[in-house]
This record gives sequence, structure tokens and C-alpha cells, in this order.
Amino acid sequence: MPTANRTDLLFPAEPGQRALARELYALAAQQPIISPHGHVDPALLAEDRPFPDPAQLLIVPDHYVTRMLLSQGVRPAELGVPAVDGSPVETDGRTIWRRFADHWHLFRGTPSRLWLEQTFREVFGVSTALSPATADEVYDAIAARLAEPEFRPRALFERFGIEVLATTESPLDDLGRHAKLAADGWGGPGGRVITTFRPDNVVDMEFENWSANVDQLAEVSGEDTGTYDGFLRALRRRREAFIAAGATSSDHGHLTALTLDLSAAEAAALYDKGRRGQADAADAEAFRAHMLVEFARMSLDDGLVMQLHPGAVRNHNRWLYATHGRDVGGDIPQATEYLHALTPLLDAYGNDPRLTLVVYTLDEYTFSRELAPLAGGYAALYLGAPWWFLDSPEVLRRFRESVTESAGFYNTAGFVDDTRAFCSIPVRHDVARRVDAAFLARLVAEHRLAEDEAAETIVDLAYRLPKKVFKIGVKA
Amino acid sequence: MPTANRTDLLFPAEPGQRALARELYALAAQQPIISPHGHVDPALLAEDRPFPDPAQLLIVPDHYVTRMLLSQGVRPAELGVPAVDGSPVETDGRTIWRRFADHWHLFRGTPSRLWLEQTFREVFGVSTALSPATADEVYDAIAARLAEPEFRPRALFERFGIEVLATTESPLDDLGRHAKLAADGWGGPGGRVITTFRPDNVVDMEFENWSANVDQLAEVSGEDTGTYDGFLRALRRRREAFIAAGATSSDHGHLTALTLDLSAAEAAALYDKGRRGQADAADAEAFRAHMLVEFARMSLDDGLVMQLHPGAVRNHNRWLYATHGRDVGGDIPQATEYLHALTPLLDAYGNDPRLTLVVYTLDEYTFSRELAPLAGGYAALYLGAPWWFLDSPEVLRRFRESVTESAGFYNTAGFVDDTRAFCSIPVRHDVARRVDAAFLARLVAEHRLAEDEAAETIVDLAYRLPKKVFKIGVKA
Amino acid sequence: MPTANRTDLLFPAEPGQRALARELYALAAQQPIISPHGHVDPALLAEDRPFPDPAQLLIVPDHYVTRMLLSQGVRPAELGVPAVDGSPVETDGRTIWRRFADHWHLFRGTPSRLWLEQTFREVFGVSTALSPATADEVYDAIAARLAEPEFRPRALFERFGIEVLATTESPLDDLGRHAKLAADGWGGPGGRVITTFRPDNVVDMEFENWSANVDQLAEVSGEDTGTYDGFLRALRRRREAFIAAGATSSDHGHLTALTLDLSAAEAAALYDKGRRGQADAADAEAFRAHMLVEFARMSLDDGLVMQLHPGAVRNHNRWLYATHGRDVGGDIPQATEYLHALTPLLDAYGNDPRLTLVVYTLDEYTFSRELAPLAGGYAALYLGAPWWFLDSPEVLRRFRESVTESAGFYNTAGFVDDTRAFCSIPVRHDVARRVDAAFLARLVAEHRLAEDEAAETIVDLAYRLPKKVFKIGVKA
Repeated sequence: MPTANRTDLLFPAEPGQRALARELYALAAQQPIISPHGHVDPALLAEDRPFPDPAQLLIVPDHYVTRMLLSQGVRPAELGVPAVDGSPVETDGRTIWRRFADHWHLFRGTPSRLWLEQTFREVFGVSTALSPATADEVYDAIAARLAEPEFRPRALFERFGIEVLATTESPLDDLGRHAKLAADGWGGPGGRVITTFRPDNVVDMEFENWSANVDQLAEVSGEDTGTYDGFLRALRRRREAFIAAGATSSDHGHLTALTLDLSAAEAAALYDKGRRGQADAADAEAFRAHMLVEFARMSLDDGLVMQLHPGAVRNHNRWLYATHGRDVGGDIPQATEYLHALTPLLDAYGNDPRLTLVVYTLDEYTFSRELAPLAGGYAALYLGAPWWFLDSPEVLRRFRESVTESAGFYNTAGFVDDTRAFCSIPVRHDVARRVDAAFLARLVAEHRLAEDEAAETIVDLAYRLPKKVFKIGVKA
Repeated sequence: MPTANRTDLLFPAEPGQRALARELYALAAQQPIISPHGHVDPALLAEDRPFPDPAQLLIVPDHYVTRMLLSQGVRPAELGVPAVDGSPVETDGRTIWRRFADHWHLFRGTPSRLWLEQTFREVFGVSTALSPATADEVYDAIAARLAEPEFRPRALFERFGIEVLATTESPLDDLGRHAKLAADGWGGPGGRVITTFRPDNVVDMEFENWSANVDQLAEVSGEDTGTYDGFLRALRRRREAFIAAGATSSDHGHLTALTLDLSAAEAAALYDKGRRGQADAADAEAFRAHMLVEFARMSLDDGLVMQLHPGAVRNHNRWLYATHGRDVGGDIPQATEYLHALTPLLDAYGNDPRLTLVVYTLDEYTFSRELAPLAGGYAALYLGAPWWFLDSPEVLRRFRESVTESAGFYNTAGFVDDTRAFCSIPVRHDVARRVDAAFLARLVAEHRLAEDEAAETIVDLAYRLPKKVFKIGVKA
Repeated sequence: MPTANRTDLLFPAEPGQRALARELYALAAQQPIISPHGHVDPALLAEDRPFPDPAQLLIVPDHYVTRMLLSQGVRPAELGVPAVDGSPVETDGRTIWRRFADHWHLFRGTPSRLWLEQTFREVFGVSTALSPATADEVYDAIAARLAEPEFRPRALFERFGIEVLATTESPLDDLGRHAKLAADGWGGPGGRVITTFRPDNVVDMEFENWSANVDQLAEVSGEDTGTYDGFLRALRRRREAFIAAGATSSDHGHLTALTLDLSAAEAAALYDKGRRGQADAADAEAFRAHMLVEFARMSLDDGLVMQLHPGAVRNHNRWLYATHGRDVGGDIPQATEYLHALTPLLDAYGNDPRLTLVVYTLDEYTFSRELAPLAGGYAALYLGAPWWFLDSPEVLRRFRESVTESAGFYNTAGFVDDTRAFCSIPVRHDVARRVDAAFLARLVAEHRLAEDEAAETIVDLAYRLPKKVFKIGVKA
């Protein structure tokens, strides 16, 4: 039996339900991809240069892969992950690839296995099953494809059927790559590649070099950030620039979901304390929490959709952080409380039709208790797709099983790939569409939903809903 | 394919398992309905007047429906929900109904969809699928039924096969409607409509007008509530009156599951402090917690089953509360701890055969960790059916999957509809029976249970167990 | 339909998936049993005496059974559970058995039902379904078997196909039974029956008679425990003795997962305070937490695998504890935090290839949020099998569904029966193998895994992985 039968991948075994899932999926599969949030480097599409070798493309930057190998004793340096201190790491793509292939069995049952296998097959046309024995064959086949012009980023973007892709930049970014994209007819408002406003590095006083970042914010915005008022003006200026580069949303990565609606004087006092280098952890938390309400207020004016990503304890694996730095697999989720944390923001604007707030989670044990009742009871609130450790078939299924009964389908925001791995975008969306098709097929098979309604719903989830929630294609 | 095939609704697709589920369900479907806890207005059955128009009956008072519409921007006033300040709201039933039908797709996959669709079909004989296009047709058909004598409350009660229905009243209620029911041969001990003793408004110092309520308790009970001892005597008097009106249980809606076994002197000091208006939040919490143990003591004497409903943060949606008041969809669950919270009560009476304590939850992430081990280890404790946001097919299934292994079936208390929506009672019980049949069918299909045992169990769950646990039909 | 069809027990109903599960299970069923952690009394196998009557063997010591009966009002004394004060309890095996059989329906859907039914059938060859009517027949049949030499412990050990069984002893144990086993060719390093080092009674200052235990540790180890340094030396001596008796792991039963890496001076100060009888609860917690890091350090040297079992609130049912003592069903799980609690230990040795740390849980609501991401991101960390209240088919399934996507299969440690019920060992492993086969069959049926990979994985899970993780058969 082939491992990856494209026809029935992820569909339930029961023949009647499987047939329904197949029909529903076929409707979703025709839809263009809307990728309203992710971390693809815009330079990739701005410059459209060939990709590097298969290991540098698919292994080295994929922290899902390198953390799994670390968990079984393979050091990141052996896989080419750059060292903080510049000490040498493996650079030979083929050697890295073989090490990876030697441990391919570790990924059984994981989304990485699905994503990579489908990427090999669907993107690169390589259907040889990976194993230690076939490592070179698969490597060579992918390397050969990567040398072809059809495998440059823009060509793949079109082949993938991506309608819109949002990247994520900090307010300090000059948006030069987006300007290049706009000049080439690929970017700008309503364009194919848009940006997202992610201000953590100027909002989080615990961020490395926060105060220096705020100084730099003054430069890039032309507003004096010496005062809290000036800081807010600077943020508003940058949001305008981001909107001009196509942004329809902001994104906020916080340790918790805490929000606070401080008075202007209180917020200014915290800001000044932070700028003097005197803020403690509680001050920093309060300022981050307050700024979420402040950003909500800005959204009322400029229409940016707010995204909140709470719950990741960054750099939990301290050896990994010390050796290889950030974003290499050392983050771990913690329990996340939403009900009380979001109260100040929801009190202020939770029923305001001008605000759209998309909330994500790394803690599925809030699905039915907090997230679904909140999304089903506040006009402004939408549930983001399962995120990061949870963007996998089993959790995508549990998400629908756990939130639909209180929030329905239409208070969820559609799938978000949240990835920097450009080549994995199609398969990630495909997995979500398949899981949704399987879930809807069950509802139909159990006589809980008519088939025509399921058919409309699957297209809504795949295409119409993310466009609406993230205001894609809507001029601000 | 029809949306709602009554034969196989909610049954698994696999044909063998479905056939088993059908057989088991058939046994449950023959059983009368025992509704040991709910919020139907006793006046409905005491007065037996015709129902109002379809919108006033099915939409306006149903906070599951109005909160879902609010979550997508439809204001409660547009749906006829009365405003606190008396400002005008929509009063035209047909207009409200059309607004509801325009948003019918929001309910896909929700229990409201199931309940309403089955109510249209089974109660009112309307099988036209609701849609914006059929809104008037469905409205008119239901309205026509509601004008017929067969659709008065008592006639429906009999058609629904309800054996016993418990309403819920506060100790301040004069039980006049229940007296009327008893006079008509419908109420009183062992009768068809009984009451439940719900003392939150005189026990919770944070309740609106608590102290005035306690004054009123003195009047209705004829006991002086100037002292804590008198307060306890007054409560005992009211329990006697409730038992005379058929009550077999009390019910306690608390923010947490905290219990405390204070000395009489400590409790009296808290009571006095509260009566002087000097109690703070911690005092109020301690007093509520202590009163649970006090009520357990009363139960040892008078035999009332105790029900504990913790975990709802009331009026979380403050705009909704300010505009439309309580019980209109603004409550949200919070995380609930049971293990340590219940310790004082369980230390005192957890193994006492005279006490029956039924504990509910809004937090399913306690099922296997706390609730099932507690219910499977204390003689007094039973698990109530999944409640409110959780009284839906997916959670009813997860409840059985998560609690049965540690608590078995016989430490659960049977289904409770907990509804004020009289017409939805049959479908709510039907859904629970179907989910239990499907779960038992799986146990049989997987050779974990013999079919004759499953057959006995499904009847126990539907009928015998709730009668036994809630002492229905048993004279106190 | 027979209740327990050995062929398809616990397999999904869908015929294609069931056939796959059957094939995969057949591979696992051939594997010897590795039981790397449990509580079988080593005297059982050292002395190899006949078992007592069926009730004393299967009911009286099984707290899963006696707690369930207590939950429905049957007192432990009626079931022969010894009383703390020596007051008389039921001693007649047949009477106890009949009481148990009268309540057999309580166990429907529980693992006890599966374990006992399969034990009757597979171990004792009794396939009559238990019921009040057949109680004597089943009792007599089992009693007759127990009188035969083929039903002595060593004969059953061989018939069960156990390759290695680890018992658990405290450092105060003289390991005499293990010496006897070694003398008989059954024990010692690499032997069939090995021990496990469980130091809770000398590490936990809140343990009954802690200080006296530490005095006794001095005697048994020959090291002066008057100082903290001497205490550590004494522990190292005992670990050496345990390793000489075949131990490959230590085990730590703590209330929480808290770890602390104190300085030697701080730890010594806590130790001295405890020895003076002045330690409070926080001191005891800190000392336990620190000792976990200390034991990790010892493991770096002597190679013992560390097992951590947190989260049981011991003797929650205080009446039961007062009347019948420890380990009779009065413990209840509490919520357990891992992320922050394990940080000090993981900071110190989380990526050290010399350490193997197997972490268990009673709180499944940490599976996808904390446990799987931790196990999938640290080289030293493995996830133990679902434990105690969770060692049941539904949770074993949810474990795979919830942890595999972030941790894969190869960061889990294989099934652990953790039982004192020797006769239930085969069925417990069998249940785990069946659930794994069913899960893998689903992955294959949904085209997520090739069948040959699933076949390799099921054997790894049943046999190779526990041998590797627990270093079974590896000389230290």
C-alpha cells in the first residue's frame, strides 16, 4: 500500500464517510490558497533567486525537524544549524540530508512526516519513499528540480495557487522588499504579497535591545519617541506605512493573553520607567498588556485586524538558545488563561463591529472551556487556527470537535500556515482542508448536516472566511 | 440526503456499529423522560396557556441563539431581547424570525441546530429545511400549530412522555404555582411537576440585594433571620416547604467548587459581618463555601439530593449585561478545581450513605483527572451530565470516553436538560440517549461489553439511574 | 456475541482497519513482555508459594476494585480489606467474591472489567461470564486452578512470556528476596527479576518516620547520615547495591514535578533543618525538588534511568486512610505543571546523553501542551506510559493521538504496567498492544504511514523501545 495516497490521505476508513469526505475535499482543493499569516522572508519573492540545496532548504531552517533530531541525541550543529559563537557546523548538504534520512523513522505519525513527504511528492515530483538507503536518490532528485527555473519562488507561488501571502515584519523594517514586490506588480494593497505589522520588538520591554529599538522607531517613523505620546504617534505612522504596503493585520506574540486598559498617564509612566531602564518584569507585563488595548484602539481607526499569539515560553531549552540562538526549536507552550486575561480588552471593544481580534492558542485545553464560548459570545472575537505544536491533523480534528458546538464554524478564522517554509505552504493548507472535509463528512454521515450545507461550509472555511476575517482584497 | 434522519441521527457510520446503536437506542427511546433539573417556569404548566408566537417562544428567550447572533454582529435588541432601560426592541415575531433564519448557517455543527431542527420536525411537524427563503413558511406552520389546543403546555408534556419534571425556585418563592399544580393533580410529592430548592440569592452575599433577600426569607419562613441560627432555621423551614411541594433536591450555583467547614461561631461571625454590609469578596466566598457543608448537613436530615453547579463567570460580557441584564448569553466558563475545593465537604460526609452530591462542570478538562476519580472513590459523589456549553453531542461522547474508565456508568447521574426551553426537552434527552447508545455500541463492537449488558445499561442511563440518584418517586 | 473475543478485542469496527489492526497486533503478541516498572512483591517469585484463594488474590488487594465498590456504598471491611486498628473484617473468600460479583455491573466500561475478565479467561481458563448467578462457579474454577502447580508464580511467569520484571524497593530494603532470586538463577544484573531504587521514604521529609528512616539508611548503607554529604554517600552506596541486584532505574513518587538545583550549602542546610525536626512544608518541597537534580547527577555516574511519577494527592479520602491505611484507593490526581517545574533539572542535564528521564502523568490535560513538546525537544526526556487512572484503553488511545504529533513514537518509553497484581500483567500489556495496533492501523488506513513502517513500529513499542529506554539487558 502506498504511504501517501493523495486521493484518500487523512480520510476516515469507513467507505461511506470516506466518499463524502472525498467529494467535500474536491471542492476545497479547487480554491486558491489564502495565507493571511506567516513568516516567509519577503526577499524570497522580491528577489526570486533559486533555492539553495535540499538540506539548506528543507532541513536546516526547519525547527520541527531539528528539535526532533535533538530529542534523540543528534546535535543541531551536525545538521548545519548556525552557532551563535560562529563555531563551525556541518555545511555539506548531502551529509546533513543523510543524517536526517537516518532518523526518518522518528517522524512517523508527526505532521513533519506528512509535510515533507507531500512536499517531496507534490512539489518536487519525487515519490521514492525516503529511507537511509534512498537518501541520496531523493536528495539528487530534489537538487535537480531546484536547479530548474520552474522551481524559483515566484514560479512556485503561481503553481501553488496562492492568491495572497502575508509576510510579517517589525515596525523597524523599511519594507524595501515589499516596495520591490509592489514595483514588480506582486505587492501593495490588494496585491499578492502583503505584509503584517508585528510590533513586539518595540512593545515588549523585555525584548533584546528594546530601548534601542524604540530609538530606531523614531528614525524610521520620523516621530519623536521620547514620550509615550510620541511613541504612539510613531506606531501609528508605521501602521500607515504597513497598510500602504498591503498590510491588513497586526500580530502580537505575547507570553500571556493579559490585557490592561490603563489611563494615558499610567501608561506614560510605565513607558518612561522602561525608557529609564527601571522597569521590572511586572511593569513590562503591564505595558505589553496595555499596548494590546492601545492597538485595538488604533485598529478602530485604521482597520487592521489584530492577531494575538500567546503562550510560548521562548528559549525554554537554554542550552539550545545559548548555542544556536532563537527560533531553533527551544520554545515550549505553557498553560494559557483567556477568560480573565482578555476581559479589559473585551470590556472596551469586544462588541465593537469595527474591531476584529483573532486569538490563537498553544493550549488546546482551553478550546471548549474558554475559547469557543468567548468566540461564540463576542462580536469582535474570532478563533485562529490551531497553532504551531497544534497545526497537525489530530489537533485540527479536535479543534473542530471541541469549538464548533459553542462557536460554530463562522467564528473561526480559517487556516493559517504560520510558516517560514515556503515549499510547505500547499501541503499545510491541504492537510487542514482534508481534516475539515473529514469532519464535515462525519456530520453529514451522522445526519447532523445536509450535504449541500457541508459543501458550502468547506468552501467558506478554505477560502471565503479567511478572506473576510483578514479583510483580504478589501481596501482599508 | 435528508439532514435529519431520525433513524440514524448521531449514530456512527460503520454499518455494524450503527446497527447496534439503533437497537440500543430503541430501548432508551421507549423510556419516559425524567427531567430532574431544569428551569422551566412552573407557571407554564400551572396556567397551561397557549404559547406566544414562534419567535417569542423559540428565539427571544434562547440565549444560545441570541449570543451566537451577537457574535456575528446581530444586536439582541434586533432579536427582541428586552432592554434593561426599557428602550424599544424589536417586537414583531416575523421580523425576528427572518433575522434568525438569515443567520441559520451560523448554527451548523452546534447543538442549537440539532435542537431547533428536531423541535420543528418532531414537536411541530415541520420538516421544511429552514433557510432565508423558507423563513416565512416555517414561521407560519409553527404559528398555526401553536394555536391548536394540542400544543398547550400540559398536552405537550404528556405527548413528550415526561414522567417527572423538576423546576427550580428560590427559597423566597411562595411556591404558589406548585400549589396550583398540586391542586390540579400535577404536582406535590411524587407528582409530575416538582420543585428544586435553589438558595443562591440568600446564601451569596454578592448576590444583588442579598441582605434584603434575607429579610424576605424571614417573612416567608416565619423565622427571625437576625441571627445566623435563625437564618439556618429559616432555610430548614423553606426546605420543608419545598419538600412538601415535591422537591427531592437542592441546587447550588457557585463561582467555584470551594467548600469550607467552619465552626458555628466563625460562620455566625461571617453572617453578621455580611448583614452589617461589611463583608468583602473573601468573606462572601468563605460563607458560600461553608454553606455548602451546612446544606450537606441539612441533607443528612431531610434527604434532599445536593447539586453543585460551579464555574460560570456571570455577566462576563459587560456591555450585554448593562444593556440586557442577566441570563442572556453573557456568561463564560472558567477553569474549575475540584480536588482541593471539595475536600472539606468530602472529609465530613463524602462516605456517608445519607448524602447524595451531584457535581457538574463547565470545564471538561477535569473529567479524567479529578471528577471521575472522585466519583469512583467516594460513596456520596455522583457526576452530573455535561452542562450548558457542554450539553452537546461531541462533549456527551467525550464525557463517556473520559469518565467511564474511572467512575463507570453507575457513578454518573443521568442526563439533565437544565433548560428553560420547554419544547426542547424531548430532543435534548433524545440526543443524550443517542450518544450513549453510540458509545455503548462501540464497546460492544470492540468486544468490551456484552450486548445484553449494554441493553441493560442504556435503560439504566435513560431512566432508572436518574430516578434513583435524584430520588424521583421516592417519598422523603 | 461473546463479550471478549480475543481476536478483535479493542479493535475498531470498520473491517479494513480491523484487519490491519489484527495483523499489526499479531506481531506485537509474539513479543516477550518487558515490565520495567511495577510493584509485584519479589517474595512472590523468590518463594514461589501457591497463591491464596481467588478473593485474596484478585479482590482484596486490588484498590481499583475496592474503591469502585466503596463508591457505591460497599465498605472495604466487607471486602476483607484489613483495618488499621485491627478490628475484624470479612475473611471468607467466597463471601467477598459474592459481594464483588453482585456489583460486577459497576465495572462495565472500566479497565478492571477488561483485566479481570481476561485474567479469568486467559490465565485461569474460565470463560463463564461472571454474574451474581455464576459467582460460585467462577470462584470454584479459579480456586481449583490455584491449587495446581502450574499456577505457582514462577510457572505463570514463564507461561506469561515475561522476559524481565522489575520490582520496586526502598533503599532500606536489604534486597534479600532479590538475593534469593539471584541464587536461584532468576535475579541479578541481566536477570529475569530485577529491582528498582525508590528512595521516597528517605527523601521526603513529610514521609512517615522520615528521620528514623534516614537513621536506618545509615545502618543499611554503612555510611553516617548525620550530615548531608554522608546522606548522599549512603544513597550512592544503596544505588550500587541495587545495581548489583539488577536495578537499571530509580523511581520517584512526588506530589509535584518541581525540581530545584540548590547549592550544596543550601541543600545541607535544609537537610539539617529537617533532621532537627524544624522543616516546614516548603522546606520539604524544596528538598524533594532538589534531590531530583541530585539523583540526576548520580545517574550521570551510575547510569540508572530516572522515573518521575508526580501528581497523586495521597490519602485524599481521609476516612478510608484512617480506617484502612495507605494504598487502598484513597488517592486522587491533581493538576500537574511540568514546564516550569522541570526547568532546573532540564537546564542542568536536559540535553545530556548520559541521562534518561522518564516522566509520567496522572493529568492527561498536559499531553499536547507540555509533555509532548518537552519530550520532542530534550535529549534526556522520555514520556512514560499513561499511569494509574489513565492506564486504560481510551486514555492509551488519546495518549497516542495527543503526543505522537509533537514527540513521535520514539520519545515514548513503552508500556509500563505499574501493578502489584501479578496475574494481570499479561492482559495489561495486551491491552496496550491492542490499542497501539488500532492506532497504527488508523494511520495506515488514512495513508499516513506505510504498513511496513507500522509493523516495525508496533514491535518497537512492544519490545525494543522499553528495553532500550530502561536499559534492560544492558550491563551498567
